Amino acid sequence: MPVITLLSDFGTRDYFAGAVKGVLLSLNPDVTLVDISHDIPPQDIFTGAFTLGQAYSCFPAGTIHFAVVDPGVGTGRKALAAAAAGHYFVAPDNGILTYIMQAHEDFVAHEITADHYFRKPVSATFHGRDVFGPVAAWISRGIELHQLGPVLQSPARLQIPALKKVRDALIQGTVLAVDRFGNLITNLKPEDVSMPFKILAGQREITALRKTYGEGTQDELIVVPGSAGYLEIAIKGGSASAALSMRAGAPIGVILQ
Amino acid sequence: MPVITLLSDFGTRDYFAGAVKGVLLSLNPDVTLVDISHDIPPQDIFTGAFTLGQAYSCFPAGTIHFAVVDPGVGTGRKALAAAAAGHYFVAPDNGILTYIMQAHEDFVAHEITADHYFRKPVSATFHGRDVFGPVAAWISRGIELHQLGPVLQSPARLQIPALKKVRDALIQGTVLAVDRFGNLITNLKPEDVSMPFKILAGQREITALRKTYGEGTQDELIVVPGSAGYLEIAIKGGSASAALSMRAGAPIGVILQ
Amino acid sequence: MPVITLLSDFGTRDYFAGAVKGVLLSLNPDVTLVDISHDIPPQDIFTGAFTLGQAYSCFPAGTIHFAVVDPGVGTGRKALAAAAAGHYFVAPDNGILTYIMQAHEDFVAHEITADHYFRKPVSATFHGRDVFGPVAAWISRGIELHQLGPVLQSPARLQIPALKKVRDALIQGTVLAVDRFGNLITNLKPEDVSMPFKILAGQREITALRKTYGEGTQDELIVVPGSAGYLEIAIKGGSASAALSMRAGAPIGVILQ
Repeated sequence: MPVITLLSDFGTRDYFAGAVKGVLLSLNPDVTLVDISHDIPPQDIFTGAFTLGQAYSCFPAGTIHFAVVDPGVGTGRKALAAAAAGHYFVAPDNGILTYIMQAHEDFVAHEITADHYFRKPVSATFHGRDVFGPVAAWISRGIELHQLGPVLQSPARLQIPALKKVRDALIQGTVLAVDRFGNLITNLKPEDVSMPFKILAGQREITALRKTYGEGTQDELIVVPGSAGYLEIAIKGGSASAALSMRAGAPIGVILQ
Repeated sequence: MPVITLLSDFGTRDYFAGAVKGVLLSLNPDVTLVDISHDIPPQDIFTGAFTLGQAYSCFPAGTIHFAVVDPGVGTGRKALAAAAAGHYFVAPDNGILTYIMQAHEDFVAHEITADHYFRKPVSATFHGRDVFGPVAAWISRGIELHQLGPVLQSPARLQIPALKKVRDALIQGTVLAVDRFGNLITNLKPEDVSMPFKILAGQREITALRKTYGEGTQDELIVVPGSAGYLEIAIKGGSASAALSMRAGAPIGVILQ
Repeated sequence: MPVITLLSDFGTRDYFAGAVKGVLLSLNPDVTLVDISHDIPPQDIFTGAFTLGQAYSCFPAGTIHFAVVDPGVGTGRKALAAAAAGHYFVAPDNGILTYIMQAHEDFVAHEITADHYFRKPVSATFHGRDVFGPVAAWISRGIELHQLGPVLQSPARLQIPALKKVRDALIQGTVLAVDRFGNLITNLKPEDVSMPFKILAGQREITALRKTYGEGTQDELIVVPGSAGYLEIAIKGGSASAALSMRAGAPIGVILQ
């Protein structure tokens, strides 16, 4: 049974996710459906891209990933069917696949133009149900990407903040994401820093590098190598995001000594 | 594999949805379970009915829909097993199937009285687990509706607000639902209005008809033909519900010119 | 197809639940995945244990339950693979299986030490993905518990509040959980009280015993035998938790007459 994952900003109160799943099962009853998340903040392509980038590679090769955070639905933005490392992706052409493109040289995207695969009539506001869902189902039934439309040479990419060397011993980084526990996932990798180092975040200096969230004293700000491959700023038993009033996109400084 | 969808106001923090799924899989391990939503606002039959009405028809014929928003659980309200257009429904007799009844002349409901299909002992407070779940599973195993109980001639129906002609050029409508993005789904269909027209909502007049949410200028109130088949009031990049302080049930006016 | 249920405090916005499901399907594509809840309050082992305790027994024998609320991830806390009444459990050794242990004399837990079943490299912060997920998948493929590690004689247990006889006619009880509707689930069982009785909760006295939430007058505080097997304090059409400002852990008094 082919696997189709779903990632969106549809939320879980409305009919949106249910409608897409119905379309998928109508076109291919033999598919296994798995939600990654429908709680991406509304229209937040950046968070959607990060979340997809962390989850997709845990799935088996051959998985089809439906990734629809789509503020431009119904406008001129293109629709993509893409492949990388044996995985498939259907998504609007707005950068939500940026982390996949960065990770895989074999990434290839096709613009979806073959509208005979769409659900008719195609609404202007819900391409998840009418375009991306049906196309994901057809891919699961064996349709090849070139049957969906021509290769798109330059799909949209987000600007993922890179580390910036401000001075010899001062690096400027960014918070890429905040998780449900309030941990701040930075764009610093463990190999980017050498001991001892100091992170400047909000008005605070953080020097305690710990192996895990459970270490350290209560209320101590700590740095932890996280499961996404990046250093995270955390507080034992609390929310670092709340304590520092910091969100995704916030700058941090790193002083190497 | 038969498909069973689940729609409820159980939420996702408690054991309710998990218990129902366990009961379903215990009675029929070969079923495919799909959540439509468990985040219907508590006891809000109206929103449950709307959400089910928008989602069910995307599923393949033969699908069984578990739809339990049930403020009257344990009281005298009846339990229903129904069929329409090849779909099956199990639900309390409180109007949650209203949109299904409206859409399909072949709608037929049976009162569930055959309690040997129930999970014992039947609690007075959780018929999702003890009545509707087991009955849905038995339908997926081939039990026919007449085996569950007699036909019910007049199942409960909600009063879905209809358009009202106030004067020749003035129609009164209603907000049927508010989606997660804050779009106001009205009971106006595109064919109900002719250009040019003006919608009165809150203290505002809205005249901009757009094809999709991505059109228009920032903060402009617009009218968009939505994916549910109704006109929606939206704001690009924001929540029309918040901007207008309007919720489901709020009245709107339409001036035709 | 073996069933694996998932219960966690991962939430539904992040990549956590999706990553675990991907790992499970990568190791065993034939498994049926069912969410019990990912919305256990962060690090709230007590609520996680209660929710699992109410849901697991609805599933068919042979089901594997992934139960990960894990504030001690990466510290010295042990990892468990357990069995009881034909069900399997993978969980941190922090008491989250307490209700299972209480209910089944055949409960047996093994400490997971066979790290060749883990996903490598094992992060220090996400054992759901790297330890518990893989082990659950291997159990679904037929690995036996003794292959995972030695029997653990005294797994951690939570102190579940017991009823306390204060005086002959006065019992002290506790709120075990609050559900999404605001109903207060106490640790009183129907058989613990004889009529007439009076419950003291907050500053209020409650004497109305009803069969279900739909009985009683608007705003009346009532006692209802709930679906979890305990007496619940409820208000018709409202939240008893909000009305009484009471949460899980709050004390109640019971006066027998």
